[in-house]
Amino acid sequence: MSTHLKGNLTVVGLGPGPDEWVTPAALDAVTKAQDLLGYIPYLNRIPNREEQTKHASDNREEITRANDALALAASGRRVVVVSGGDPGVFAMATAVCEAIDHGPGVWRDIDIRIEPGVTAMLAAAARVGAPLGHDFAVISLSDILKPWAVIEKRLRLTSEADLAIALYNPASRTRKEQIQRAFDVMKESRGHNTPVVLAKSVGRKEETLSVTTLGETNIAQIDMRTLVIVGSSATRVIARGDQLPLVYTERFVKET
Amino acid sequence: MSTHLKGNLTVVGLGPGPDEWVTPAALDAVTKAQDLLGYIPYLNRIPNREEQTKHASDNREEITRANDALALAASGRRVVVVSGGDPGVFAMATAVCEAIDHGPGVWRDIDIRIEPGVTAMLAAAARVGAPLGHDFAVISLSDILKPWAVIEKRLRLTSEADLAIALYNPASRTRKEQIQRAFDVMKESRGHNTPVVLAKSVGRKEETLSVTTLGETNIAQIDMRTLVIVGSSATRVIARGDQLPLVYTERFVKET
Repeated sequence: MSTHLKGNLTVVGLGPGPDEWVTPAALDAVTKAQDLLGYIPYLNRIPNREEQTKHASDNREEITRANDALALAASGRRVVVVSGGDPGVFAMATAVCEAIDHGPGVWRDIDIRIEPGVTAMLAAAARVGAPLGHDFAVISLSDILKPWAVIEKRLRLTSEADLAIALYNPASRTRKEQIQRAFDVMKESRGHNTPVVLAKSVGRKEETLSVTTLGETNIAQIDMRTLVIVGSSATRVIARGDQLPLVYTERFVKET
Repeated sequence: MSTHLKGNLTVVGLGPGPDEWVTPAALDAVTKAQDLLGYIPYLNRIPNREEQTKHASDNREEITRANDALALAASGRRVVVVSGGDPGVFAMATAVCEAIDHGPGVWRDIDIRIEPGVTAMLAAAARVGAPLGHDFAVISLSDILKPWAVIEKRLRLTSEADLAIALYNPASRTRKEQIQRAFDVMKESRGHNTPVVLAKSVGRKEETLSVTTLGETNIAQIDMRTLVIVGSSATRVIARGDQLPLVYTERFVKET
């Protein structure tokens, strides 16, 4: 008879950048870890400790990282996988679940914990007011994981539903045309004056924010670090002189 | 010529309950406030300090609270409005923006800051895995602020778009029929085996979690403290013996 050690794996979200947005629960998990796994820039946010081992990997290696983390946990180690933002929104919690689903049965006995965090859209929205203050949709524009036809259908239906829309992964170094096509789809059912918020590198030194409209957005300035929020018909902009305008989505919806 | 003091107002999200989910930035703002305004249970989560004044109000008084907070800030006070969860998701940041939009012009000069937090759906999702790990919609079922026809249309279109759906305000003491109608609408385009997560009072002592399906959900157990997550066609459940199953939405979407 073989016995196995019951391991322990926590997936934590470190938020969009600054330490002041990291929850005490996430910090506690990180501090207690024996092994830390993650995409290099996220691991770099954590101070080195002699008794901890960092296992850095590249952005595209989510499933390998999840498998490695589970194997370590199954061997009895206290393992933490770090994500930016919230680990449950286009991030590592999904990859870990997927790895368990397709992995050896003993992985189901591992004590899995997920520590929520501040995801990029909440930080971006907070910087300008409350554009996600009423019903909204959250859509990734990356077509690595799904066909463009699916993305387009989702954009069309959520635009028709008059939801504000937060767009993750709007572009990458090699992928620039999706965001243009997404704007074209949204313009079919939404006015060109619909407010748009572009939040680049929110919470970091190089943060830039702009408030524009669906018709006026300069698509070229949207990159992989940009979180895009497109308003609904109930999204309003409050001019404030030299300050960035406030953007919010009204709490009341009139009959359509 | 009259001068006015440039006030200062921060809207903070305290997360769903436990202190370990309150960001250092939110805690810092609360600590430095001269006046704290909020719904009574949220204010009760903050220790009393001699030099601070707490202004408690009822849940329904969002706009009055926002107006009071802005008037205090305009008089030169350092004011904090506290929300549960994230202040930008069905919470006080929207009411404050709305009050500025409709209030006296000088309110636009107030230094407004919004501190993001962990909103209920992220905490609920984290407890069971990653049901919001791919595209999703966030919809409030309260028909106090919008007609039922709008809610129904949004549920129908987001179901057709095959998004996971997080439902806020699914019921109240007096409002029980919306959640039944919502489930009926979602069943029209989604299989009865679609996973459903019910997360009641997440992060509190009385927390209860259940994983069920669209067809099997006992609607009667859903109340105002319940966050409901309905999966997409790509949401999977991983059985784990005595432990609560893991629920996640696959990262890959096949052609539809």
